[in-house]
Amino acid sequence: MVLAADHIDRLGAILGPQGLLTLPADMVPYESAARYEGGRAAFVARPASTEAVSQLVAYCVRNAIALVPQSGNTGLVGGSTPDDSGTQGVVSLDRLRSTFTFDTYNRSLRVDAGFRLSEINARLEPHGLFFPIDLGADPMAGGMAAANTGGARFLRFGDVRRNTLGLKLVLADENGTVIDCGKELRKDNTGPDWKQLFIGTGGVFGVVTECVFNLERLPRQAATAYLVPRSGEAALCLLNELEERAGTYLSAFEGMSGLAIRHALTHVPSLRNPFPAGEIPGYVILVELSRSWARRGNEQALDAVLEEMLAEIWDLPDAPLLDALIGAPAEMWALRHALSEGAKSAGYVVGLDLSFRRGEVMRFRERASGWLKAAFPQVGICDFGHLGDGGVHFNLVVPHNPDGSVDAKLVARLRSLLTEIAVEEHGGSFSAEHGLGRRNQHFYDRYTPEKLKQMATQLKQATSPGPIGGVRF
Amino acid sequence: MVLAADHIDRLGAILGPQGLLTLPADMVPYESAARYEGGRAAFVARPASTEAVSQLVAYCVRNAIALVPQSGNTGLVGGSTPDDSGTQGVVSLDRLRSTFTFDTYNRSLRVDAGFRLSEINARLEPHGLFFPIDLGADPMAGGMAAANTGGARFLRFGDVRRNTLGLKLVLADENGTVIDCGKELRKDNTGPDWKQLFIGTGGVFGVVTECVFNLERLPRQAATAYLVPRSGEAALCLLNELEERAGTYLSAFEGMSGLAIRHALTHVPSLRNPFPAGEIPGYVILVELSRSWARRGNEQALDAVLEEMLAEIWDLPDAPLLDALIGAPAEMWALRHALSEGAKSAGYVVGLDLSFRRGEVMRFRERASGWLKAAFPQVGICDFGHLGDGGVHFNLVVPHNPDGSVDAKLVARLRSLLTEIAVEEHGGSFSAEHGLGRRNQHFYDRYTPEKLKQMATQLKQATSPGPIGGVRF
Repeated sequence: MVLAADHIDRLGAILGPQGLLTLPADMVPYESAARYEGGRAAFVARPASTEAVSQLVAYCVRNAIALVPQSGNTGLVGGSTPDDSGTQGVVSLDRLRSTFTFDTYNRSLRVDAGFRLSEINARLEPHGLFFPIDLGADPMAGGMAAANTGGARFLRFGDVRRNTLGLKLVLADENGTVIDCGKELRKDNTGPDWKQLFIGTGGVFGVVTECVFNLERLPRQAATAYLVPRSGEAALCLLNELEERAGTYLSAFEGMSGLAIRHALTHVPSLRNPFPAGEIPGYVILVELSRSWARRGNEQALDAVLEEMLAEIWDLPDAPLLDALIGAPAEMWALRHALSEGAKSAGYVVGLDLSFRRGEVMRFRERASGWLKAAFPQVGICDFGHLGDGGVHFNLVVPHNPDGSVDAKLVARLRSLLTEIAVEEHGGSFSAEHGLGRRNQHFYDRYTPEKLKQMATQLKQATSPGPIGGVRF
Repeated sequence: MVLAADHIDRLGAILGPQGLLTLPADMVPYESAARYEGGRAAFVARPASTEAVSQLVAYCVRNAIALVPQSGNTGLVGGSTPDDSGTQGVVSLDRLRSTFTFDTYNRSLRVDAGFRLSEINARLEPHGLFFPIDLGADPMAGGMAAANTGGARFLRFGDVRRNTLGLKLVLADENGTVIDCGKELRKDNTGPDWKQLFIGTGGVFGVVTECVFNLERLPRQAATAYLVPRSGEAALCLLNELEERAGTYLSAFEGMSGLAIRHALTHVPSLRNPFPAGEIPGYVILVELSRSWARRGNEQALDAVLEEMLAEIWDLPDAPLLDALIGAPAEMWALRHALSEGAKSAGYVVGLDLSFRRGEVMRFRERASGWLKAAFPQVGICDFGHLGDGGVHFNLVVPHNPDGSVDAKLVARLRSLLTEIAVEEHGGSFSAEHGLGRRNQHFYDRYTPEKLKQMATQLKQATSPGPIGGVRF
C-alpha cells in the first residue's frame, strides 16, 4: 500500500463500505484494459452519486492524491487505467447508475455515466430510438464522452460530440466543484460551450458524471454490398458517386484490406468466404444504405435501390468499380466486425488509430504499405476503417517470437515511424477516435504546437488543477 | 477623433492606404447593424490577410486599443459593432477574400472569413454542393463561426459548429498569435478541440480569419405542406409522427403564428393568402421533406410520399392534425421568409431569440401569450421559428407612438420579463442562434453561474487577454 492508511480510512468514510476497493484481487479488473499492459492502483473508488464523486475528488485534490477516472474500461490508449507507480487511485463510475430520463419529444436522454452503450440501446429499443454510436466495444456513457467515441456509422450520425447536448461534471479543484454544461437544448449560444472542453479530453479537465445525449430513430431497412474498387483513388470516386446518389441513405462506407479479411476468415469459424471462387480481393469496401422507417407499399426496396445505383456507377466511363456483391447486412457486417479478432489471432497487433482528409486515406495507405513491405516484410498490414469519414485503423500484425514474446523495440519503432508518415507527410491525426491517454502522450507532446500546449495548461489550471486523468496537458 | 493621431499613423502604416478608414462618412456602414442602434468607431481597419490582422491586433493589444471584429455585419445582438464611446476600432474582415479552396473528396471548403454565405453557395452550386446553413440574412464566413449561426434547416444539417472542421485565428495577445485549430479532419481527438472555444463566442477569444467548412449535397427534390395542429401539444406529436415516418427526409419543421402570417400577407404584396376562404389559422407549421438526389424512375415522388404520411397521421386516434395543405416549396417558403418583414411593417419589433427542449416551446408560447394578453394587450405576438430544434423567435410588435417613437421602457421591460419566463420557468436559453453581444450582456451576467463566469475570465486571459469583442466574459 503506497497510500497512508489514514487516507484510506477517510476515503472509506466518504464512499461507504461498497465504495472503496483496496484488496489487490478486487482491484485487478480496474487496473488493466482490453489491449494494453496494466498498471497498479492505490485504491479503486466507486462513488454512487455525483455528490460522492465531488467529495472524493475534493479530498484527493486537497491531499495531492492522483486520480484516473474510469467508466467501461474499454479504452485503447491508457486513458482510464493507473500507471505502474501504484500511487494513482481509480475513480470508477460503474456505480453511477440512477438517472435514466428519456424525453420523447426532445429525442434526448439524460443518463448517468455508468450505463453501458448496450444497456442504453436495449432500453431505448422499444421506443424505436437509439444512441447512434456503433462500435465493437461496449463502453459506458461517461467514457464515451471523455473519448469522443466515433465508430462505423459516423458518416451518417457523427461522433459523441455531435450527439451530446449536455454534461454534468466534477472539476478536480479543492471543492470538487460540480458544473452543469448545457441543458437539454439543441441551440444555445450564451457563452463558451463548456461541454466541448470535456469531450474527447479523457477526464483531464474533470470527471463526467452525467450526460444528455441526442437520440436517433432506429434503422428499419438496410441494404449492404461489398465493393471492389479499381484502385485507391477509385475508392474515393466510389464514395463520391454513392454520396451523390444515396444522400442520407448512405450510413456506412468501410474499407477492409484483403489480409485483414483473410485472417478473419481463417480464425473466426462462424464466417463463410463470400467472394467468387473464394478469392479475396486486395481491398474491399462495405457499403450500407439504411432508412429509419418501415417500407411503405409504394416504396422501392432498398436493395433494389442499391443495385440500381451500382449499375449506374458501373456504366460510368472509367468505372471505379471492379466487382460488387450485394448480400445480407447481418452476414456482411459479421465479417467487418471480425477483423480485429482475426488480426489478434494472427500475431501481435500494433494498432494505429489514424485519420486524414478523406482523399488522403488511400494515398497514405499506399505510401505506408510500400514502405513497410520494403523495410519490414515480416509485418502484415491488416488495416480497416471508416473511409467515409477519413478514419483508418492501420493495424499491423507482428509475428510472435518462438517463445511467444514480441519484439517490443520493433513495435515501438513501427508505431513511431508510421505515425510520423501519417502526421508529417499526409497531414493526418495520430488519434482519430480512441482519445488521449498515456499511450499517445508522447505524440501529443511532439505534435502539439507550443502555444496550444500553453493554452491547455492554463485551461487545466482554470478548471481542474488537481492531478487527474491519464494524459498530461 | 478619440484616438491619438500617432496611433492612426502607425495603423495606417500596418494596413496600407485601403486598409484604414477614419473619415466619419466612410465608417458609417461599419458602425451600425441591421436591427439596432449604432455606435461610433475610432477607426475601421480592413486588413487583407491573416498576417495583417495579426499585426493590427498585436499593435492594438500593446496599446490597449479596444477592437470589435466584424465580418458581414448582419448580427442582431450588437456583437460586431462599436459602442457609443468612440474608442473602439472595428476590425472588418471584408477584405479577407483570397482563400477559397474546395476539396471534392473531402466535401470541405477552406475559405477566408470575408466571403458571404451567398457567394460561397453560388460558387459551390455547379458542384452540386452547399454549405448547409439556411437563413434570411447573408453573413460572412467569419461571423457565422463567431455567432454559431443556426437557421431553418438545423433539424437536418445542424449549426455552424457541427459543420466546422477547422478555424484559423488571431489571438488578441501582444504578439497577435496566429493559431490553426483543426485541419480538414472529421475525426481528430488529439487534445482540446480548440475551435469549439471560438465558435459562438463573438470574437472575444480571438478573430476568425479562415474557416474549413463541411459541405453537403444540394437538395434535388422537395415537398412542403402547411399543417394546422390541433393544439400546442399536438404540434409536438406531429413532429414525432413525421420524424418516425420521414427520418432523414425531414428537413424543416417551422412554426408560424397566425398574427405573423397576417402581417406578412398584409405588408408583402407579392404573397397570396393560401388558406381556404382566406382564413388564417392561429398557428401553422411549415414542413419540408427533401432529398439530395434527382428522382429515379422507380422512385415515388416526394409530394406523394408526404401525402401518404399525412394521410396516415390523419387516421391516427386523436389525430394531432386539423388541416393540411400541400403546395409548391418556393411559394410556401416565401411566406415563411416574409414573416420578419411583415412584423417590421406593423410596428417596432422586440426580437427574442429563445430555445427550449422541444416539448417546452409550445408550453412557453402558451404561458407567455396568456401573460402578455393580460398585461400588455397592445402588444402583438408574431412568433415563428424552428420547432424541430426547439428554437423560437418570440417576436413582439409594439405599436409606434403617434410621433413615430417607441416606448423604450416598455421594450426593455418586455425583453427582460419574457426572458425571465423563458429561462427561469421553462429552462430555456436567452440566445439560441444569434450569439452574444452588447445586447444580451446583462442576460449573460445574470444567468451564468459564477464558476462558469470565472472559467470564462481565466480562459480569456489564457487566449486573448486584450480588449476585443462585443461582449465581456
